[in-house]
Amino acid sequence: VLSNDKPARKESIVHAEVAVERAQQAFDEARDATPSQRAGWLDAVGAALERHREELIELAHEETHLGIPRLRGELTRTVFQVGLLAEEIRSGRHLEATIDHADPEWGMGPRPDIRRINEPLGVVGVFGASNFPFAFSVMGGDTSSAIAAGCAVVHKVHSAHLRLGIRTADVVVEALAVAGAPAGLFALVEGRQSAETIVDHPLVRAVGFAGSTAGGRALFDRAVSRPDPIPFYGELGSTNPVFVTASAWAERSEAILAGFMESVSLGMGQFCTKPGFLIIPETDLGALAEPLRAATARIKSHPLLSHRLDEAFHESLSELQMKSGGSVIAAGSDDADAPGVTILGTDAARFIEDPALFDHEMFGPASVVVGYRDNSELLALAGLVSGQLTTSIHGNPGDDIEQLSRRLRSVSGRVLWNAWPTGVSVTYAQNHGGPYPAATITGTSVGTAAIGRFMRAVAYQDFPHELLPLGLRDDNPLHIPQRVDGA
Amino acid sequence: VLSNDKPARKESIVHAEVAVERAQQAFDEARDATPSQRAGWLDAVGAALERHREELIELAHEETHLGIPRLRGELTRTVFQVGLLAEEIRSGRHLEATIDHADPEWGMGPRPDIRRINEPLGVVGVFGASNFPFAFSVMGGDTSSAIAAGCAVVHKVHSAHLRLGIRTADVVVEALAVAGAPAGLFALVEGRQSAETIVDHPLVRAVGFAGSTAGGRALFDRAVSRPDPIPFYGELGSTNPVFVTASAWAERSEAILAGFMESVSLGMGQFCTKPGFLIIPETDLGALAEPLRAATARIKSHPLLSHRLDEAFHESLSELQMKSGGSVIAAGSDDADAPGVTILGTDAARFIEDPALFDHEMFGPASVVVGYRDNSELLALAGLVSGQLTTSIHGNPGDDIEQLSRRLRSVSGRVLWNAWPTGVSVTYAQNHGGPYPAATITGTSVGTAAIGRFMRAVAYQDFPHELLPLGLRDDNPLHIPQRVDGA
Repeated sequence: VLSNDKPARKESIVHAEVAVERAQQAFDEARDATPSQRAGWLDAVGAALERHREELIELAHEETHLGIPRLRGELTRTVFQVGLLAEEIRSGRHLEATIDHADPEWGMGPRPDIRRINEPLGVVGVFGASNFPFAFSVMGGDTSSAIAAGCAVVHKVHSAHLRLGIRTADVVVEALAVAGAPAGLFALVEGRQSAETIVDHPLVRAVGFAGSTAGGRALFDRAVSRPDPIPFYGELGSTNPVFVTASAWAERSEAILAGFMESVSLGMGQFCTKPGFLIIPETDLGALAEPLRAATARIKSHPLLSHRLDEAFHESLSELQMKSGGSVIAAGSDDADAPGVTILGTDAARFIEDPALFDHEMFGPASVVVGYRDNSELLALAGLVSGQLTTSIHGNPGDDIEQLSRRLRSVSGRVLWNAWPTGVSVTYAQNHGGPYPAATITGTSVGTAAIGRFMRAVAYQDFPHELLPLGLRDDNPLHIPQRVDGA
Repeated sequence: VLSNDKPARKESIVHAEVAVERAQQAFDEARDATPSQRAGWLDAVGAALERHREELIELAHEETHLGIPRLRGELTRTVFQVGLLAEEIRSGRHLEATIDHADPEWGMGPRPDIRRINEPLGVVGVFGASNFPFAFSVMGGDTSSAIAAGCAVVHKVHSAHLRLGIRTADVVVEALAVAGAPAGLFALVEGRQSAETIVDHPLVRAVGFAGSTAGGRALFDRAVSRPDPIPFYGELGSTNPVFVTASAWAERSEAILAGFMESVSLGMGQFCTKPGFLIIPETDLGALAEPLRAATARIKSHPLLSHRLDEAFHESLSELQMKSGGSVIAAGSDDADAPGVTILGTDAARFIEDPALFDHEMFGPASVVVGYRDNSELLALAGLVSGQLTTSIHGNPGDDIEQLSRRLRSVSGRVLWNAWPTGVSVTYAQNHGGPYPAATITGTSVGTAAIGRFMRAVAYQDFPHELLPLGLRDDNPLHIPQRVDGA
């Protein structure tokens, strides 16, 4: 079995076309599996990841520099996510079973018997992200939620942690086999040509992606230019601006700066939710130099995920400094391997002239403090922000944040109050998405609601009971929530 | 106030850019309206349409030739739909309110308080369809569900029934004003340039469309090529093949042919759910000539919606006859104004050679009977079908339809059993959509689930109670369903 670009290194890497065809077969074979069977497959994968924890963490550490504690936490999160999705599909909520019995008295004329249920889309292509070697990679949120939905997955491994990806795929493939899932339900592919195949292949019915705006947009364009366009769930970019009210700043500027620095430097700033802008009621930014410098000095740097990312980070930082007219308020010292944390400072006027500055993402440990003069300038800045995964407000209960909050929620997937956007909890209510470019399509890639992205509704009209999917039968053998006759 | 292409005929037609900007203002003003206030606006519109019933029916009859009984039924359906959507948003189900309280014991690490709710997208552009002057036009499913969602609508009127569209808009705009909705929440625009504006304008956040595959695809391409792509909910085409098992055919071929002819000729075949193919176990199609001719002779023809559609119908019929090698089994007589119902007959081999034939839509009173030799040929044909709004099976309970049903549901929005696809009931479970080209994006344009297309989730993290949307508060002042801590 061959990879498209180079000789196969491992059985787990398969030729993309072969992988897609086998995935379709596996999808067909798994078609009638019950949600609780699928949940069992997911649980088996979670348990296998846990069993191989030490080995996987070690590989991840060698390839990412992210540090053992962070990697342990990320694997815990990944295993937890698999389990939560399993629990969710056991409940059957994701099927949204809806039953309308025939009704001769229906207001617009006699109603036939119509029943709707969500069914899986088919084969899903998933792209691994560089910055989360577990949680947004091989068995990350996209793969887990697609399998929970009932789909088969062909995963394009990220080259930044190839060995880890291959080993994780080994573990996943074996666990699925032992649990009785059809062979081919999950496969790993590698290389650029494979990437194109999993966006173009007629059997692929949806794609999940997290990465750069440029790369993601190119793949999005490809997906929607197919003879039959498919949904491309891409998370492309977010700068996560944080707005601080005058009263909060007056009361606790030190604590805010400390929280800010911690959030900016977490994982060396390689998070899609890193706060890229801190907007504060302070025009003399020079006064921040002292506390920020002290904070940057305390931060322990480590190298970025790859040399290419490091270069891109420095370029991006220079470009934003130039365009924003910002000055460096504080900068940790770069060493050969690891960049220092850098905080730029500038005023609101530049952003009001050139709102595109707010879209400028620096993937690494840097952020910009923007000073505003008064509340109307604060609101003007908030009005310039485009689609974001998150926006945050630091304020006090009495503050008049009506308008600010209104503007921010209209462009955000998640809005936070006196909290920092890094650290995305996997929950029922979580929403990790937002207007473009935060996400290409409405929908969350984190939390139980992620499952719905990989399903579509099918309605059955006047079907005899024995031919209906189990979830739509009147005796409800799956014991799932059913909406019956509107109630 | 001007239309883009020609002088305004009526106050109700406004310049598209102005309409979009006012719609945004209205959207902002309506932002905090409760679902029950919005429901009141919809009910007011429904009541106004009912009050103007006779006048509207008369205008529709003059412009469409669809006949008074059909038009009365369609207006009833449209008013019913507005009411059902109002009822749905009163229930608050569409908000999908989800509350996760903070939980220090959460499996992946302490969980903050996160609450998610669906919020409206903003201004929605809607294109009226030619063939449903009420139900898929000014106040049709797309407009009603977008307003139910909390959006503002700019509607591009279809030129095939312009006077009706303008008058309907008058009624809608007045009813909304009297009910207290902000001015501009609904506006009518006209002409090609307006169409482009409502796909391109930065303030437009989604588009609803039903029409031809060519026209729809061009607009879809435009919507996804924007700097910020937007969802384009397009219904582009469907040929709705009907599969008849050997046992059903042996038992009741006459009844099946009668139902088929009625469904094909309903509304002169100008339905997106018209059965375009009847697939039967009969290779001597000549034997059908007699019963089909008798049926075609009984059908009372009337002119198609427009001269252009009439021309296109005849072209499409000739083309399919040529490509499929079909012979005319039965044809009602064309007169100068109204085409006769035409049934072609051919065998399965042609379709197996050229599966694209199944995508060939004839918008008018014509259909193709396709004879198959045995069950494996039946299954082969079913495997060639691409995305459909509907597919149907006519069979008997004992028939082995496992594989057939599996293939059809994988390409269909709705699957019917011993029923005909025309006549789409507006219900909770209805699903009017399907894989491309039936729909460009997963989602239904008919029924209560249509509302969700025009909303997106927003999560609130650690928000103080008084700043949360009403639907997310613990005391649940809106009395809506809330999912709390997963339960």
